[in-house]
Amino acid sequence: MQFTAKDIAFMLNGTVEGDPLAVVNHLAKIEEGTAGSLSFLANPKYEQYIYTTNASVVIVNHSLELTASVKATLIRVENAYTSFSLLLEQYNTIKLNKTGVEEPNFIHSSAKVGAEPYIGAFTYISQDAVIGDNCKIYPGCYIADNVKLGNNVTLFPGVKIYFDCVIGNNVVIHSGAVIGSDGFGFAPNADGSYKKVAQIGNVIIEDNVEVGSNTTIDRATMGSTIIHKGAKIDNLVQVAHNVEVGSNTVIAAQSGISGSTKLGERIVIGGQVGFAGHLTIASGSQFGAQTGINSSIKEENKQWGGSPHLPVKDYLRAHVNIRRLPDLEKRVKELEDIIKELKKKGD
Amino acid sequence: MQFTAKDIAFMLNGTVEGDPLAVVNHLAKIEEGTAGSLSFLANPKYEQYIYTTNASVVIVNHSLELTASVKATLIRVENAYTSFSLLLEQYNTIKLNKTGVEEPNFIHSSAKVGAEPYIGAFTYISQDAVIGDNCKIYPGCYIADNVKLGNNVTLFPGVKIYFDCVIGNNVVIHSGAVIGSDGFGFAPNADGSYKKVAQIGNVIIEDNVEVGSNTTIDRATMGSTIIHKGAKIDNLVQVAHNVEVGSNTVIAAQSGISGSTKLGERIVIGGQVGFAGHLTIASGSQFGAQTGINSSIKEENKQWGGSPHLPVKDYLRAHVNIRRLPDLEKRVKELEDIIKELKKKGD
Amino acid sequence: MQFTAKDIAFMLNGTVEGDPLAVVNHLAKIEEGTAGSLSFLANPKYEQYIYTTNASVVIVNHSLELTASVKATLIRVENAYTSFSLLLEQYNTIKLNKTGVEEPNFIHSSAKVGAEPYIGAFTYISQDAVIGDNCKIYPGCYIADNVKLGNNVTLFPGVKIYFDCVIGNNVVIHSGAVIGSDGFGFAPNADGSYKKVAQIGNVIIEDNVEVGSNTTIDRATMGSTIIHKGAKIDNLVQVAHNVEVGSNTVIAAQSGISGSTKLGERIVIGGQVGFAGHLTIASGSQFGAQTGINSSIKEENKQWGGSPHLPVKDYLRAHVNIRRLPDLEKRVKELEDIIKELKKKGD
Repeated sequence: MQFTAKDIAFMLNGTVEGDPLAVVNHLAKIEEGTAGSLSFLANPKYEQYIYTTNASVVIVNHSLELTASVKATLIRVENAYTSFSLLLEQYNTIKLNKTGVEEPNFIHSSAKVGAEPYIGAFTYISQDAVIGDNCKIYPGCYIADNVKLGNNVTLFPGVKIYFDCVIGNNVVIHSGAVIGSDGFGFAPNADGSYKKVAQIGNVIIEDNVEVGSNTTIDRATMGSTIIHKGAKIDNLVQVAHNVEVGSNTVIAAQSGISGSTKLGERIVIGGQVGFAGHLTIASGSQFGAQTGINSSIKEENKQWGGSPHLPVKDYLRAHVNIRRLPDLEKRVKELEDIIKELKKKGD
Repeated sequence: MQFTAKDIAFMLNGTVEGDPLAVVNHLAKIEEGTAGSLSFLANPKYEQYIYTTNASVVIVNHSLELTASVKATLIRVENAYTSFSLLLEQYNTIKLNKTGVEEPNFIHSSAKVGAEPYIGAFTYISQDAVIGDNCKIYPGCYIADNVKLGNNVTLFPGVKIYFDCVIGNNVVIHSGAVIGSDGFGFAPNADGSYKKVAQIGNVIIEDNVEVGSNTTIDRATMGSTIIHKGAKIDNLVQVAHNVEVGSNTVIAAQSGISGSTKLGERIVIGGQVGFAGHLTIASGSQFGAQTGINSSIKEENKQWGGSPHLPVKDYLRAHVNIRRLPDLEKRVKELEDIIKELKKKGD
Repeated sequence: MQFTAKDIAFMLNGTVEGDPLAVVNHLAKIEEGTAGSLSFLANPKYEQYIYTTNASVVIVNHSLELTASVKATLIRVENAYTSFSLLLEQYNTIKLNKTGVEEPNFIHSSAKVGAEPYIGAFTYISQDAVIGDNCKIYPGCYIADNVKLGNNVTLFPGVKIYFDCVIGNNVVIHSGAVIGSDGFGFAPNADGSYKKVAQIGNVIIEDNVEVGSNTTIDRATMGSTIIHKGAKIDNLVQVAHNVEVGSNTVIAAQSGISGSTKLGERIVIGGQVGFAGHLTIASGSQFGAQTGINSSIKEENKQWGGSPHLPVKDYLRAHVNIRRLPDLEKRVKELEDIIKELKKKGD
């Protein structure tokens, strides 16, 4: 993709200062700009770079006052940050704007595919699956029997969705994520071996959810594992059977939620956090990275840290205290010596 | 799938009370039953729901005595729980009862495939691979040169098995799991860079093992990484080179076992647990979630927690003590003040 | 593959003692050798096994003096360890020496593929992708628009690389790894929901890097997530957007690095370690397993442990102190009792 300064000014309703035919073919930070870069300047902190950048074109505020000459072609707009964000989104949309049905693919005759799909090669859509409108299903995805996808769903390459799962509208699932694999349920036999408990529920992912790469979300034993609308889940996260993740809850990478735990809404979870099973976690809770939660949390909007979890202040104070332990021991030793001395005198 | 109450009663050798033509097409908990649901009632605690459920058909014990009228059609059996479990399994079996060889696929002319296979489209079976009888290999799997699969093996979509690995009978491997990738072995060069140590061993997975989604099991440097029979491994688990996992050992999600560590039998490992390398862990050990094990364990059947690991009681006591630290400091301060006072008097 | 003792002696420039026609078809440790095994003896500690091994052929040092008869055919060389390592590498090279382009595949007409490729079936190479010489791309890989691969790159089955990413020479990426998925960036809306921040940067992986199975490396929001040359990354590792991993840095399994953190060179990171975002970590730092790093580290070549991280000595001492806490409490209690007694007397 290539654009001239003039093209971009037209898209952003801006004005060109410099060469209107300056060509850009990629985006870059102003301090990292090279020939062909399109950059922006919004934060006054970075103003110095406008005079040194090698970017070919820079989007700036109408209000910017120059104090020296600049090499780059400028595009002046009302709000450089907003204009640049708009371009980012448009760039992304163009990059991801695949359409058509590629060969070879496997689409079962009973499957229904909506309007304007992109279906990449080597994708498998099984019996009775239903795909909504404007879905983008990249190469090598697997959509099992009876799976339902809403509209505007994007599945990046190699996503696998097991049978009976239901995916809402505007859901994005990244490469290698697995939706609906068996919950980890085994009943012990008398001889120490285990018998599998059949996992016949499903996974429901509501509208506007994003799921990261290689994340795993297990189907319910019975009923549904549910990711409520607007939740955002990062890479390599484990969501066990019968879990519920509340609306607009955010889960950072490598965190895990054990079976049947219910997370409320607007929860924020750092990386590598673990929840035990069968807990209920109040809405608005926030968890620092590597927190281990082993009991339910009833009060909303509190911050937690440590393993097992403590209120974040207590957790931080405990760590300060642990570092002061050698000092405390020394003080106790001194007291003991004084007492010994006092007792000797007293005798 | 649709069944009438009469069909189900026939399968379970039960008797119908109500409409024998009542139709069900899915399974649900009695308290969540809707029209078309098949539910069961075994636990007296849930007896109240028999009068309010919207399930169309409910399996109940012969011994159940009703105290009011019920809407649902009942199927009376000797043991409602056992009968329902049987149905779950049959349901699962039907759901997963794929057969035949789909196109396109890649099966090397030297590979041998046993009786009654399911081989999904886009699956790759390489040179000299041997697949036993009644195996189900879902779409997009990769089976490398010289891999052996036993009978009744299920590989869900996108499982990858590197060359020379050996998989026993009745093994289930979930989507995205990788078996036999290179162990993480690098020898430092004089200039600070690393030279790869060739990883030429394999992975052996014995009978009745289940492996979760996106779990990784590395091949041995030499010899074999071995998962012994009946072990159950959850999602996103890391098993490093030359590890052995004992029979009927259970490993929850996101745990990791470093190189050459040997786990005994019947061990139970919570989520996000980590084992250092070259350890030997006694059979029957149990590890709480997020435990970090940095030395071998010789005594069998003990419970452990914390990082580094402690006997679980010591670990819990340590955490209580940490929370009491501010109080302890206060007490020491008080003692210091008294001593100062006493010394003053004594002077 | 099958070789005679004579073949191997020829390859290693060694001399045969015993049957030159003894046949081997696999490699094994000397203590685990069976008929058909090729083993080696270098460490005097294992010398006893030369008299009992069932291996058919054993590579030994010229200097080895036998004190009893041996069953195995011996191949005498200058340095048995070096010779065996050489064989391992050659074995591996042969095992992985796939060539040719298998069908079906999807290679866009605008993609460029270098000399001597292996391209497995079901692999997808998209628009404007450029693949260097001598690359091995196993079945089911996905290479998006405009991706560049250097020479001698190996992608094991099911690797996915998103658009615009750049991979250097001699890079090895294991099965299921995802390179270039979206960074986890969401801006809160007034109503508590989140708006996605477009992620339009890429991932750059420099020469001689190895990436483990099911590891995820996210693209930068803008600019590049960079893995510098010679870094080695194990399985199930998370590398977030805009991270930089320095040259020859080694990251063990299940570790995670949050957004914009810069790791220096020659860092060694144990398993399940987590780094907070926006940190700078000095070269040569070493981190024990499960360390949690929540602030930048400026001093080079130090060792760290615990969560939050401490110098490893302080971390270990803190753990000793925690275990001594019940004892410390007892001592304080004793002091309190004595003081009470003293004060009584004093009154």
